[in-house]
Amino acid sequence: MQITGQMLIGKKVVFGLAGNAKAIDPSINQEIEPVFGFAITDEVEQACLLAEQAFDSYRTTSLEQRARFLEAIATGIMDLGPVLIERAAQETGLPVARLEGERGRTVNQLRLFAKVVRDGHWLDATIDSALPERAPPRPDLRLQKIALGPVAVFGASNFPLAFSVAGGDTASALAAGCPVVVKAHNAHLGTSELVGRVIQRAVADCALHEGVFSMLIGAGSQVGQQLVAHAAIKAVGFTGSRSGGLALVKTASQRKEPIPVYAEMSSINPVFLLDQALASQTTTLAKNFVDSLTLGAGQFCTNPGLVIAIESAAARQFLQDAARALEDKHAATMLTPGIHQAYLKGTSHLAEISQLQLVAKGQQAESVCAAQAVLSVCSGTTFLTTPALQEEIFGPSSIAILCKDFEEVIAVASSLEGQLTATVHAISDDHAQARKLLPVLEKKAGRILFNGFPTGVEVAHAMVHGGPFPATSDSRSTSVGAAAIERFLRPVCYQGFPADLLPAALQDNNPLQVARMMDGKLTLAS
Amino acid sequence: MQITGQMLIGKKVVFGLAGNAKAIDPSINQEIEPVFGFAITDEVEQACLLAEQAFDSYRTTSLEQRARFLEAIATGIMDLGPVLIERAAQETGLPVARLEGERGRTVNQLRLFAKVVRDGHWLDATIDSALPERAPPRPDLRLQKIALGPVAVFGASNFPLAFSVAGGDTASALAAGCPVVVKAHNAHLGTSELVGRVIQRAVADCALHEGVFSMLIGAGSQVGQQLVAHAAIKAVGFTGSRSGGLALVKTASQRKEPIPVYAEMSSINPVFLLDQALASQTTTLAKNFVDSLTLGAGQFCTNPGLVIAIESAAARQFLQDAARALEDKHAATMLTPGIHQAYLKGTSHLAEISQLQLVAKGQQAESVCAAQAVLSVCSGTTFLTTPALQEEIFGPSSIAILCKDFEEVIAVASSLEGQLTATVHAISDDHAQARKLLPVLEKKAGRILFNGFPTGVEVAHAMVHGGPFPATSDSRSTSVGAAAIERFLRPVCYQGFPADLLPAALQDNNPLQVARMMDGKLTLAS
Repeated sequence: MQITGQMLIGKKVVFGLAGNAKAIDPSINQEIEPVFGFAITDEVEQACLLAEQAFDSYRTTSLEQRARFLEAIATGIMDLGPVLIERAAQETGLPVARLEGERGRTVNQLRLFAKVVRDGHWLDATIDSALPERAPPRPDLRLQKIALGPVAVFGASNFPLAFSVAGGDTASALAAGCPVVVKAHNAHLGTSELVGRVIQRAVADCALHEGVFSMLIGAGSQVGQQLVAHAAIKAVGFTGSRSGGLALVKTASQRKEPIPVYAEMSSINPVFLLDQALASQTTTLAKNFVDSLTLGAGQFCTNPGLVIAIESAAARQFLQDAARALEDKHAATMLTPGIHQAYLKGTSHLAEISQLQLVAKGQQAESVCAAQAVLSVCSGTTFLTTPALQEEIFGPSSIAILCKDFEEVIAVASSLEGQLTATVHAISDDHAQARKLLPVLEKKAGRILFNGFPTGVEVAHAMVHGGPFPATSDSRSTSVGAAAIERFLRPVCYQGFPADLLPAALQDNNPLQVARMMDGKLTLAS
Repeated sequence: MQITGQMLIGKKVVFGLAGNAKAIDPSINQEIEPVFGFAITDEVEQACLLAEQAFDSYRTTSLEQRARFLEAIATGIMDLGPVLIERAAQETGLPVARLEGERGRTVNQLRLFAKVVRDGHWLDATIDSALPERAPPRPDLRLQKIALGPVAVFGASNFPLAFSVAGGDTASALAAGCPVVVKAHNAHLGTSELVGRVIQRAVADCALHEGVFSMLIGAGSQVGQQLVAHAAIKAVGFTGSRSGGLALVKTASQRKEPIPVYAEMSSINPVFLLDQALASQTTTLAKNFVDSLTLGAGQFCTNPGLVIAIESAAARQFLQDAARALEDKHAATMLTPGIHQAYLKGTSHLAEISQLQLVAKGQQAESVCAAQAVLSVCSGTTFLTTPALQEEIFGPSSIAILCKDFEEVIAVASSLEGQLTATVHAISDDHAQARKLLPVLEKKAGRILFNGFPTGVEVAHAMVHGGPFPATSDSRSTSVGAAAIERFLRPVCYQGFPADLLPAALQDNNPLQVARMMDGKLTLAS
């Protein structure tokens, strides 16, 4: 499949004329062919109107049809073969093995949502029988969830496959019955086009309305804003910076009809090392921490940006071991020159904070956009009095906090903003302390890990990739895992409906064979 | 129980010194004793801090404890006896029979949530087993929902019991594990104090932290705004005007940590009369429509403010029959002089719209705050070109729209803003048209009714009292029925947890006996 630099608007391919750009190979900071054209206003409009036109037919496709569509996208992505991986590697600087793993995750994610769609539990089908004898009589009431409407999805820079054109937001929105208009991320336009064309073809092969999927190219501040402001769009999925996310939240809230924005924005993912765990596994913890910190050049939303322990000999040893491990780490190419610049800026701001001491750095950068890892250390008091230390630095930078006692550990935990993850390392002798720490962490994070590291987000039913503000703009949701579908649904009650007009999920004989709440009692499909 | 004009701040009773007011008997527009003091800033602060302090112990009460607390409130309300009904009748002008019915609904609502809490399905307990052999290994992942945090609840004027101090918002927030700070509605301060004291005593009797419940008195623009802006508050429940709801949404979105606001605001609840149903039941439909329109002086969120039919002899007959029925209707006292003034203003604005014709009025008002019902009529074209006709007039005013054909009926439906309800009257010969209308209504409303009228909202599992903006500020939720609990929850994932630190809902042996999703398969409690 050739990359042409065109956008996908329904079944059309269009070269946008509002401007253009090439993708960049960050390992050498040089442009790659071809040129990609940016959408003019009218093209954003067309994509949104097509999505609106597609909505009714798409949201009422059978569960089987919709599941097959998701599976067709998965198959199509695999069928692209090495072309996709090579282009993604070139555009992002990410290693081939990582991208192959990410492709596997992307495809599994689409297949998981196919299963979720078929299962139908997400419909929340609920029936309360009529009670004609009661005074006053109770009418027959039936509830199911339906799709919100067309969804705008923003590709994320750091997951060119798993959180981009056919990533988690797209998969969950399509699963819910929502047409999708993607704003491709400018950092991987070729990858985006390849995957976008797979979806476009799956739409055609599955005989769906062409408006089920479009992909636009352009600046976030223009095409992105215009998309979110469009009346046809009913929800937004975004993974990226705090400023980018907040700009979309603001636009969405100022619309004539405000809409929900699911923005995953900013997290520093504290890791708490409790005393006995730290003392008994010092060197292993240090090595695993540094591996997690430097994985993928630290470009994960769940990168461990804080590690907290009580000041002790073991804690000092941990820092020494971590320093040794870090000094061995090669500098890895970051996703874009802009991200690399922001990393340099963030780490040099840190270097100016006098109460923060350098522990160690990774190896120096040999290529133009490579990030040298950094570990710093400060006291609990310094952290508590320096709000700037809570700002996310996207990349392999972390701060160790040495607290004077457990009370200060709790104070540090309590002072944190909302997080995607919080991690506790503890052995059984630490559990009494863990019991005090957990209620604090539950209020701060969407996922709490024991004896692991936060990088690596499993796509599963029980996953939560979310958390209180500013980790996300909506703590009631997850953007990874089966429950991500819930973001794009709303409940509708059907009262006193004639049998022939009831939606399938709510018909007496349960033709979809879905779990249902019947008069307050959950029942499985027979 | 005596009414003293005091606020309830945790276990204290406090006479606020920021100002004061008396409740008003709207049937004579005269003040009723005693004087109620308004909260100073420090008192709002105290209530919020107490709620924050209560949060951890309250959210981790056992399901049984929490259910008993809700039942204790229900019992306490019944135990107040006629004192409550008499005061509410005096403050609101609502008839005793209606208030007794509303008390029943309020108490049943608390008991329903007690059942919902015990059932535990709302925990969304989900377990994905570890797959240690997989490459990479999958960790053990477990998800449950936890309470969001302290909730600010605003009493609604039109349901002094069912949507006020111990109403649906309070019941669902308490069920979710959230402490509640109520801002009492100034239209029924005595009723609020009586019910608030019942909750305060239930908190003590159930040995809960005093901060689980507080009730403040003051102006919405001061105490209400301060409450929503307070960092301890994590969600807001509100039923009232569009302007009031939007003011709270704005404040909540401008906080350092934005929070969700569930504002139920504005709905005109269209009723569609399809041809054959209209022709076969003209007189009955007219009578039932007028009964629904004038019920409770039209002061329901689900009052039928629009009735739509295709121009025909039957439609004209419907209007004649409705006129006759309406002319017999006595003017009923409205809730407050302010609401009555707004009704007069709204209906006189309508009277100025030249393409709108008067069909009939109810009987003239005999008392000072009584509302004379009004039915007007216009063409489909007029409705489509006059946006002002979509504005809610709170009270017994409705507009009939006579369309030239079914296409225009669809155009009218498509032009509507978001609604709490949409109603269709149809017999089997109308079902072909109903099939075309339903997809439009599904996108507009939270509840669709067949062959009924929208007033009367059943408290049940399948109820949806919600809908797209501006019906509510969050179409993904309902404020009535069991699913209202979901508004005050968020998911947390527990990864790799040691058995002794897992929350009860997620322990291997399922001690809470709740339904759980196990490796993607829903399982009932054994």
